[in-house]
This record gives sequence, structure tokens and C-alpha cells, in this order.
Amino acid sequence: MSNEPSTIAQFTSARPLVVGAVLFPDFELLDVFGPLEIFGLLRERSQSVTLAEHSQPVRSSAGPSSVIDRTLDQPGKLDVLLIPGGIGTRREVENTAFLAKLRTLAEATPFVGTICTGTALLARTCLLDGRQATSNKVAFKWVVTQGPSVKWVPSARWVEDDKYFTSSGVSAGIDMSLGLVTRLFDRATAVAIAQRAEYEWHEDKSWDPFAKIHGLVP
Amino acid sequence: MSNEPSTIAQFTSARPLVVGAVLFPDFELLDVFGPLEIFGLLRERSQSVTLAEHSQPVRSSAGPSSVIDRTLDQPGKLDVLLIPGGIGTRREVENTAFLAKLRTLAEATPFVGTICTGTALLARTCLLDGRQATSNKVAFKWVVTQGPSVKWVPSARWVEDDKYFTSSGVSAGIDMSLGLVTRLFDRATAVAIAQRAEYEWHEDKSWDPFAKIHGLVP
Repeated sequence: MSNEPSTIAQFTSARPLVVGAVLFPDFELLDVFGPLEIFGLLRERSQSVTLAEHSQPVRSSAGPSSVIDRTLDQPGKLDVLLIPGGIGTRREVENTAFLAKLRTLAEATPFVGTICTGTALLARTCLLDGRQATSNKVAFKWVVTQGPSVKWVPSARWVEDDKYFTSSGVSAGIDMSLGLVTRLFDRATAVAIAQRAEYEWHEDKSWDPFAKIHGLVP
Repeated sequence: MSNEPSTIAQFTSARPLVVGAVLFPDFELLDVFGPLEIFGLLRERSQSVTLAEHSQPVRSSAGPSSVIDRTLDQPGKLDVLLIPGGIGTRREVENTAFLAKLRTLAEATPFVGTICTGTALLARTCLLDGRQATSNKVAFKWVVTQGPSVKWVPSARWVEDDKYFTSSGVSAGIDMSLGLVTRLFDRATAVAIAQRAEYEWHEDKSWDPFAKIHGLVP
């Protein structure tokens, strides 16, 4: 199978969309489980797995730990790779073994979504070089230092550049995931999922009051 | 310690707010991890734990499994008990052993928050009898049958009745949790957390476009 962007016709209960979220110690809970909620509402058309460097459960910054389904050495084939943020990114940007595996997996996966400071991890793989991307607004200045060749967008709910979907802080991952559902399926599917989750989707990618609140734009 | 509602002065890094989320097979991911994200952003003033009937990891309806910190037989002392929904509630409303332990824990905990069809589980303990409550809008008619003596509110983002905070579907748990933070701390703390999570808080409890979308009100 090639890396050609997938289309709606591929994903059925017999061939579900496989979504993988990479966890690391001190990941941010909502960065992971907001997006996995959205893909989970595709029901039998989707399958979600967690991945990490090692197979032991991984603890979030808030405390609760998640079971790991696959290691980065045996990630299997994914359709969508999700990279969350969290305070643990400050350590993982220096974890070269982890970043090398993350790069290999991101290259092999048709779509890659980052949430919050997860964009810093993807930036460190150099796969965002020359591409437009955004990230968490509170940590934006730090994230920018992790990818000097990235075309950083300070004000955006999320940014799409080819197969890379990068989102703003924490809850923005939910809006970005609905954008991914629109690309992979269609807008009607995304709207139906948002309504089922009783979520007010910020469908406009440029909506970003937090860039101003956190001092990135006047 | 009595069941008197707690106040801001109690919660410090030395005596953090203890928030417990009850998991069961096929729980809904965002029902749990949206609220735990909000409480997690209290940082050292809060501690989050997961609880379940048994100590084994519990699988969500979307696939990923969570580690269990405490069983319902040894729940310890909580300040806030969170009860999520999900398709697994259809089984748990008939699990009398689980419901008996849930009732004991809910009675012993100063604040109880339900998310989505989690309200059906609390309704089955009879602790909501005579009280106002809301729930998921897609499953509302089923939830109502689980608590014939509850004063059901069809249109509300969340409802507060004394120590019981019941919320609408899935993402509404985030708004309700910010309401709990307001009660336990203050509004400024809730606003600061929402901004940090880059979340547009629906602060108005009566905001509920989904009641109309899902046919509960004209």
C-alpha cells in the first residue's frame, strides 16, 4: 500500500480506519482522548490504538495511566498518527531514539495530526520543515525554537499542510480531528459526529481567540 | 470529615482536591478525560484517580484501555466523584452489586458529577429522586426510564442540584467540570483553566442547542 491519501470508500467495518496515538510520560489527557473520542464515534468504521516507546502503561500529567497497545518498534500500519502534547514533550524533544522512530512512523502514515505541543515533537523530526504549522498558544515561543525551518502560524485553530494537520492547544485537537474526518470522509460525517458528541465544532480553522488572549497577536 | 461542601481554602498542594472517575467496560472516552483534563489543570491543587469494580484495566467503547488506581471496595476518600456514560451503561444499570457500591461512594463524597448517560447510573441508585437532572440528548428517553422520580430537565448544558452536577452528552462534561471548579474554587480559576486548555467554555448552564437538534424541544 502506498502513502496516497486515503478516501472514504476504503473505510468500512471490514477495513476500518486505523488511528494510532503516541503516548509518552506526562502526556496531556485531552490532547489524546478528545481526538480518539471523535474517531471513536465513527464506530465500526474506525479502530483506535495507543503506541509508545515501551509496552508498559504510560502515566498522563494529570495522573491516570493508559494501557499501551503497540510499541513504536512494532507499530503496524496506521492511517492516522496522532501526536499529543503535554509537559512531557520538554523531555521527549531530547529523546533522539524516540524521535527517530516517530519520524519513521510519521513518514509511513498517510495522515499525521499533532495536538498542542505535540507539534514540537513532529518539528524535531524535521518533517515540518518548509511547511505551515501551529501549536499551543501558551507554549508557542518554546515550540517555535524546536523547528526553526517551520512556517509557524501564530493564529489558527488548526493548520492543514498536505498530510500534516497541526492544532492549537489541548481542546483544539477535537476541532482538528473533525477536520481530518472531513478530509477522510466528508463534512456531513464530521457534523454528525460533533452533534452526537454534543460538541460545538469550531469549523473555521482561522478561529483563534486564544492567540490574542495569550499575547501572540495584537 | 462530614459531607459539607468543600471550599477553596481546603485545597492546596498539601491537601489536594481528590477527584475520582468511575470506569466500567465500554465507557465513553471524552466523558472521563474531558473532566479529568479540567481538574488536572488545577495542577498541584488536584489529584485524579480512576476507580472500577475490579482492578484490571478497563476498555473504553473506542478501544483504548485505562489503568485502574482503586477498586470500589477500597475507594479511599474523594472530594469529587465523576460518573461517565457510554454504551456500557446499558449493562451497568442492571449490575446491582456495582450500583450498591456506587451509591455508597456517592453518598460519602461531597460532590458528584455525571456526564452523558452516566446520569442513568446515578439515577438507578435513587440518589437523584426528587432532584433536577439532565443527561445525553440522543439517549434522553432511555435515561428517563432509569429514574422515574427524577425531575428531568430536557434542555440544559448541565444542571446543579445541591451536590449533584449532571451534564448533557459527552463534551458537556467539560463545561460542567468548569462549573464544579467555580463552586469549589471561584469563577476566575475556571476561566483561567478554560483559557489554558484553549477551550471556549459554555458558561451558561441553559445553553443547549442539542436538545433541539435531537428533538427534545421544539
